[in-house]
Amino acid sequence: MTDSQRRRARVCDLSERELLERIFPRLAVLGSPILGPGDDAAVVSVPDGRVVISTDTQTEGQDFRFEWPNGYRTTGADVGWKAAAQNLSDINAMGAVATSMVVSLTLPAETEAGWVEGLADGLVEAIRALGAKGCTVAGGDLGRGGELSVTVTVLGSLEGRAPVLRSGARSGDVLAVAGRIGSAAAGLALLEHGPAYGVLDADLRDVVQSQCRPIPPLAAGPAAARAGATALMDLSDGLLKDGDRMGRASGVVLDLDEAAIGDHAALLRGPAEVLGADPLPWVLGGGEDHGLLAAFPATSQLPHGFTAIGSVVPPAGGPGGVAVAGRPAQPSGWDHFAR
Amino acid sequence: MTDSQRRRARVCDLSERELLERIFPRLAVLGSPILGPGDDAAVVSVPDGRVVISTDTQTEGQDFRFEWPNGYRTTGADVGWKAAAQNLSDINAMGAVATSMVVSLTLPAETEAGWVEGLADGLVEAIRALGAKGCTVAGGDLGRGGELSVTVTVLGSLEGRAPVLRSGARSGDVLAVAGRIGSAAAGLALLEHGPAYGVLDADLRDVVQSQCRPIPPLAAGPAAARAGATALMDLSDGLLKDGDRMGRASGVVLDLDEAAIGDHAALLRGPAEVLGADPLPWVLGGGEDHGLLAAFPATSQLPHGFTAIGSVVPPAGGPGGVAVAGRPAQPSGWDHFAR
Repeated sequence: MTDSQRRRARVCDLSERELLERIFPRLAVLGSPILGPGDDAAVVSVPDGRVVISTDTQTEGQDFRFEWPNGYRTTGADVGWKAAAQNLSDINAMGAVATSMVVSLTLPAETEAGWVEGLADGLVEAIRALGAKGCTVAGGDLGRGGELSVTVTVLGSLEGRAPVLRSGARSGDVLAVAGRIGSAAAGLALLEHGPAYGVLDADLRDVVQSQCRPIPPLAAGPAAARAGATALMDLSDGLLKDGDRMGRASGVVLDLDEAAIGDHAALLRGPAEVLGADPLPWVLGGGEDHGLLAAFPATSQLPHGFTAIGSVVPPAGGPGGVAVAGRPAQPSGWDHFAR
Repeated sequence: MTDSQRRRARVCDLSERELLERIFPRLAVLGSPILGPGDDAAVVSVPDGRVVISTDTQTEGQDFRFEWPNGYRTTGADVGWKAAAQNLSDINAMGAVATSMVVSLTLPAETEAGWVEGLADGLVEAIRALGAKGCTVAGGDLGRGGELSVTVTVLGSLEGRAPVLRSGARSGDVLAVAGRIGSAAAGLALLEHGPAYGVLDADLRDVVQSQCRPIPPLAAGPAAARAGATALMDLSDGLLKDGDRMGRASGVVLDLDEAAIGDHAALLRGPAEVLGADPLPWVLGGGEDHGLLAAFPATSQLPHGFTAIGSVVPPAGGPGGVAVAGRPAQPSGWDHFAR
């Protein structure tokens, strides 16, 4: 069998064991937990008596398309990267450091083995490139289904600190963000309505990649915790929607600064021009960037990677929420169910 | 809105928050981890510096059908129960005790909210009825998809003990099982080829339920570990297939006793007669019972719940495997991919 034939074998032509034998060596490069894949369960070291845990599923047709309208073909490595990145971001958003993950894969019978190998490689690439040093893939599960989905569950260590919740923002705090804001939404717009991927320049391809391979700023979460952040959360569903959640959970209003929002929008002028679109809705409503939204005491020096984006003000008799330049804003953004 | 209307609302008519507000209170009855659902991640206590972790996905059409040929309709609570039970069994099979789980749900738009509420209730019912005392549901994820799937990831504590692997069986050991063997396969046969569920007697319904709501013997795993089991594993893919895995991992042959196999088959006379079937393939090849297969030193007293089913013998020059009455057996059983 040639290497190409080997990669193009469909999973229904392989036994579970044969497929696992292709996956395990690719993951082993990350090192080993106390007990790795191959038994009924894995065993992972937990240094400080508490473990942070988060789980997230990506499903074809919902979270990615195998082929986008602009011709971009999603690789297994893209899906593996994004599945890892999303989950690593949730750990980051607690101020914690990822230590290990387990992966449950549901595969249609006709899935090519090479695509699955690519997915394993993408997990590893993301863990390394994003700097989740010491994070291993401890185990997982394989099953068949009509559509392809990947569920990653990630564990993290608080390194002795308290978790930074979304409910701790206080009136008077500075509001700050780390990572790109709106870029993943601009990338999605390019994938769906933009020119053919093949003709995009490097800057626009980079915007597309921020949708396919988001880059959560993994050093920023623990740095925020060490700097005394009062609240911290992952920007996965859009600045207004996630801001509204933090505002309500904290009983305050997060007042976004119009100039700072404009600065983020200006960074998206390239894709906006190509698409004839306004970049502001991407910044305010676009999800999947996996940046961080944080509140810091006004006296804090913002840690590396954060820039101010507004301030925390009293709830003015309401339940708390989000505002732009003092005007209450309707939280728009991604909802998995509401139409 | 009446309670019936409320339950029959489809998930696409609800926001994510509204759906979560229906789920969280149902799970809260189990108690709380250090930090429960609602933030970017949950925080769970880990007493002994190591955590056991396992993950497993159930997908409609693969792991269950909403309506079976014999007319049985799978409830949300059935799916919740089975998802919890399968995962609790993996922790049990390491000799550990489950401490918490996270749940990722992928739901088609037309799923009724009441069905999802039932799923949450089924998780809780299983955790309580199976005796996973102290196990909480710490968090999860909701997403949309074309087919319904549930991924549970469970954490467990080794309570200071070493994990009991599948690779430790030694020649001379006694081989034993805990829990039902072949009953889930008999239940599947009834669901697929049996008389209408409505006309089945209580004994046959109980067999059907062993497929829909398996009962892993959760006390038996830690008991086996305390009794010095040399190897332990979950019987999820069939006695021969799982036995072959343990035999190969340990470099020994697991020699099953014909009379003991016959005793297990005799327990399935009821469904066998109704279906005109031989119960032996259910005992040897049937999966999803989530009993335990264990090896104990010959001098051990088998802990409560275990009965002997054979002995461990040398590999006779081969890689190890499984035999019946001294004759090497072909491992049949469930494989997710091979046709």
